[in-house]
Amino acid sequence: MQSTMMNVQLTTAAILRHGARVHATARVRTLQPDGSVRTGTFAEVGRRSAQLAHALRACGVVGDERVATLMWNNQEHVEAYCAVPSMGAVLHTLNPRLTPEQLVYIANHADDRVVIVDGTLAPLLAAVLPQLAEVHTVVVTGGVDLAPLERDGLTVVGYDDFIGGHLETFEWPELDELSAAAMCYTSGTTGNPKGVAYSHRSTYLHSMAACAADGLSVTGDDAILAIVPMFHANAWGLVYAALMAGADLVMPERFLQAEPLVRLISSERPTIAGAVPTIWSDVLNHLDSNPGHDISSLGLVACGGSAVPLHLMKAFQEKYGVQIVQAWGMTETSPLAAIARPPAAVEGEEHWALRASQGRPVAGVELRLIDDDGNEVPHDGKSVGEIQVRGPWITGSYIGDEDAEKFDDGWLRTGDVGRIDERSFVTLTDRAKDVIKSGGEWISSVELELLLAGHPDVLEATVIGVPDEKWQERPLAVIVVRDGSEVTPSQLRDFLEGKVAKWWLPERWCFVPDVPKTSVGKFDKKLLRARHADGDLAVIDL
Amino acid sequence: MQSTMMNVQLTTAAILRHGARVHATARVRTLQPDGSVRTGTFAEVGRRSAQLAHALRACGVVGDERVATLMWNNQEHVEAYCAVPSMGAVLHTLNPRLTPEQLVYIANHADDRVVIVDGTLAPLLAAVLPQLAEVHTVVVTGGVDLAPLERDGLTVVGYDDFIGGHLETFEWPELDELSAAAMCYTSGTTGNPKGVAYSHRSTYLHSMAACAADGLSVTGDDAILAIVPMFHANAWGLVYAALMAGADLVMPERFLQAEPLVRLISSERPTIAGAVPTIWSDVLNHLDSNPGHDISSLGLVACGGSAVPLHLMKAFQEKYGVQIVQAWGMTETSPLAAIARPPAAVEGEEHWALRASQGRPVAGVELRLIDDDGNEVPHDGKSVGEIQVRGPWITGSYIGDEDAEKFDDGWLRTGDVGRIDERSFVTLTDRAKDVIKSGGEWISSVELELLLAGHPDVLEATVIGVPDEKWQERPLAVIVVRDGSEVTPSQLRDFLEGKVAKWWLPERWCFVPDVPKTSVGKFDKKLLRARHADGDLAVIDL
Repeated sequence: MQSTMMNVQLTTAAILRHGARVHATARVRTLQPDGSVRTGTFAEVGRRSAQLAHALRACGVVGDERVATLMWNNQEHVEAYCAVPSMGAVLHTLNPRLTPEQLVYIANHADDRVVIVDGTLAPLLAAVLPQLAEVHTVVVTGGVDLAPLERDGLTVVGYDDFIGGHLETFEWPELDELSAAAMCYTSGTTGNPKGVAYSHRSTYLHSMAACAADGLSVTGDDAILAIVPMFHANAWGLVYAALMAGADLVMPERFLQAEPLVRLISSERPTIAGAVPTIWSDVLNHLDSNPGHDISSLGLVACGGSAVPLHLMKAFQEKYGVQIVQAWGMTETSPLAAIARPPAAVEGEEHWALRASQGRPVAGVELRLIDDDGNEVPHDGKSVGEIQVRGPWITGSYIGDEDAEKFDDGWLRTGDVGRIDERSFVTLTDRAKDVIKSGGEWISSVELELLLAGHPDVLEATVIGVPDEKWQERPLAVIVVRDGSEVTPSQLRDFLEGKVAKWWLPERWCFVPDVPKTSVGKFDKKLLRARHADGDLAVIDL
Repeated sequence: MQSTMMNVQLTTAAILRHGARVHATARVRTLQPDGSVRTGTFAEVGRRSAQLAHALRACGVVGDERVATLMWNNQEHVEAYCAVPSMGAVLHTLNPRLTPEQLVYIANHADDRVVIVDGTLAPLLAAVLPQLAEVHTVVVTGGVDLAPLERDGLTVVGYDDFIGGHLETFEWPELDELSAAAMCYTSGTTGNPKGVAYSHRSTYLHSMAACAADGLSVTGDDAILAIVPMFHANAWGLVYAALMAGADLVMPERFLQAEPLVRLISSERPTIAGAVPTIWSDVLNHLDSNPGHDISSLGLVACGGSAVPLHLMKAFQEKYGVQIVQAWGMTETSPLAAIARPPAAVEGEEHWALRASQGRPVAGVELRLIDDDGNEVPHDGKSVGEIQVRGPWITGSYIGDEDAEKFDDGWLRTGDVGRIDERSFVTLTDRAKDVIKSGGEWISSVELELLLAGHPDVLEATVIGVPDEKWQERPLAVIVVRDGSEVTPSQLRDFLEGKVAKWWLPERWCFVPDVPKTSVGKFDKKLLRARHADGDLAVIDL
């Protein structure tokens, strides 16, 4: 029996229409180099998105061709988020932190035809542009010199000139919601990057999940500080959620250091923010050494990308009245999959234990735990397995690459290992490839790292597994000491003692000035293991 | 370009799985006749829903056959909400307030095969059962005597016996999300009732909209008092929203009078509630005359079905610290279409003006205004037209009845007349069929009613248009005076003076002991107009 409901498709155009009409006066506020803030209303974003769509049509973009962006977080990028998918093309967000080789690979793999680039990133694009065979048009924001980009057969044009003069309304086509809206490549540390293509449907549903009261709880009274870059995993869905709810967007552009961020928070008073833990760690250091800033407008700080140290959450809450809420996801999950909101009735240490977890799956996302033998293990808070995930905004394949190993009977294998408790709170203990197996038992590198990061003299801590004759593998702790601090391996070992099983305590320690990071800011453990194998790390053996 | 996202269907089974697993300890709390409260967890609802599905299969329910309920709000009804659609059958909620003729018509029109009936409603069912040709099984809740229902060829069984002994897990089939999940017939005052069939998809999306922070803002810390009957427009989506968010459900059964409701609120401390204005009006009267009750647990009271008088909202907020939020929708809109949440920055009288409106469309619902000539009119807060609505949880047809008049180029004609302001807040001025046209201009019966209901001596006020030789139509105010009060037409007219245009002031007045209501509790203006035409109303002419 068919229902009698309208078969209205879930599209970015519907999100844009809602934002620009119902929330016409909501604003995108973008930080400028001089510290001022440029403001555009959602109504204006709607008009300029229409102009951008006309301009893209006029320069030859048809069907589902790809339009790439190489941009920071600002109003033009929001307009690209709105216009490109809504006109039926596919938005491909390029990550400026990738290597030139990776940029060339993914832009060609995606078959990008147009690139919209921030003026400040134009030199980066210029360096790879000769290798991007199919790109016919480059649109540059900001009043920069276009000459370095120009070459035969390529149109190079400033953003305002590009959209100027075009109609401020656009008949957004009726698209199939299953068609691709946007693409993002994961930055795997092995092999070539893999691409996922979000659909209109997945984008829409994910935005609804973000707006849920138990999700990020976005309302028309909020202002969202989107620190997470818009080239990174759909900006955690913050942009579309803001349009859906009518929340202001506060955009830090490329100014992601603690000092401008704190200034921006003080002046613009956002109520919601999203960024990875290292950013918040920097912000905390800055606040601690520069007292007097008020960041208490922040009601909810979503934090994810890697595990959030408990001491960081406690420090923000106790010193600055700001609640950091851990969320878990990945590029392949749009990304919001779980969020750590303990029930209000849970208090004290149990509350903090749940806050330190990666949270419960949001409605729409199903999780299961699979052990090494491929069997499902119980959600009892003890059993460990790989997390598998399923849902309407979870990827089921990679672009042009089936990679069956990444999927299991309709579920995505996340590569994250952990446990799930009776209340469905997930605690990740490791990336599958970073798991340390010592004497046949698992040691959680993540747990050791989080504990070590709680030591007052430690700025960063990474734990990797290194070969051991007797135990097969043992943990090596790689430590970055805080400026002006001093600490010894035995002091750190003593600090861990009693907090973990005795046989988890590392004997091997190494002090470094900084830990290498991947293009999305995670500890590059693969590189650390390689350096260790090459004898490039000075290891102290207790 | 296809996306790489999983094509996971949006189904009630997914909602049930999420509720029963992730929110296993959330509860359904049902008021009992002796005033106690019976409690079942969502895990138990999951197990019993599986049993109910097995039992329905065992009694012959296959495919998308219809299973009807004739029940109040209680745990068994929640189980039917979960089991019936999730197994692929279609839930048909019967309204016990319909006439026997209407019940027979819609049960046969829907081709109901099984009826689950509250023991207290068994006599009502028994009276019409001989005319329900296709019903082969009747399942009765509560320990009542089954004999009066029994007849040849019919299985009559108690609910617990019916589900008892069956497996507590069920392999919910993978359904197409566009297939029907539940049916509801509208109680039009003309012609036969018309049926709408909600899809799994529309039900799922509507639940997400209800959970939105700017929707009903349902979280796992909430307890929802669902006063709105589960046979009425999908219980406003409260049941599925609760399962999605992990909110407790507080169920008043058939005890919908002010006294038991106030007792239930005091003891169970729900945080969200939903009911029509007349219920809240009764509750207010009860609270005012029985001081000492604490209903302040209620953070949000959703109120709709007909316009909510401003004085009612103000009284609840000022006297009892409870915020009544007006929402607008209809059976055909699942029903949540708009909700009156003014921006926080809007204060004072402007705040109350927006609170008195029907609100802004929730994300997913698009509205437009169409005038008598079929042209779209601007959203300027002044222009009046019929509200048309479109979206993924809006009906696009009626069951077995195209009724093209109800639709306009893919939009649903709501039959509501009103205006929309620049911020998209909707104010309904009338039902199209109740519009009063006087001297070529419109008089809003709804505005007059809301104002009159604000008079301290008035319990209920209805305004209908009656023929007038000079002006074509003039308003007739039909008044129910509060117990123990006395008021004259001239006093009421004086009370209105200055609040509306002079030519809106009614000359014709009529005092009645009560106003006739439709089966869903709305003023039956059609009947009033007929009584007036028949000379059955004693009209005082000023």
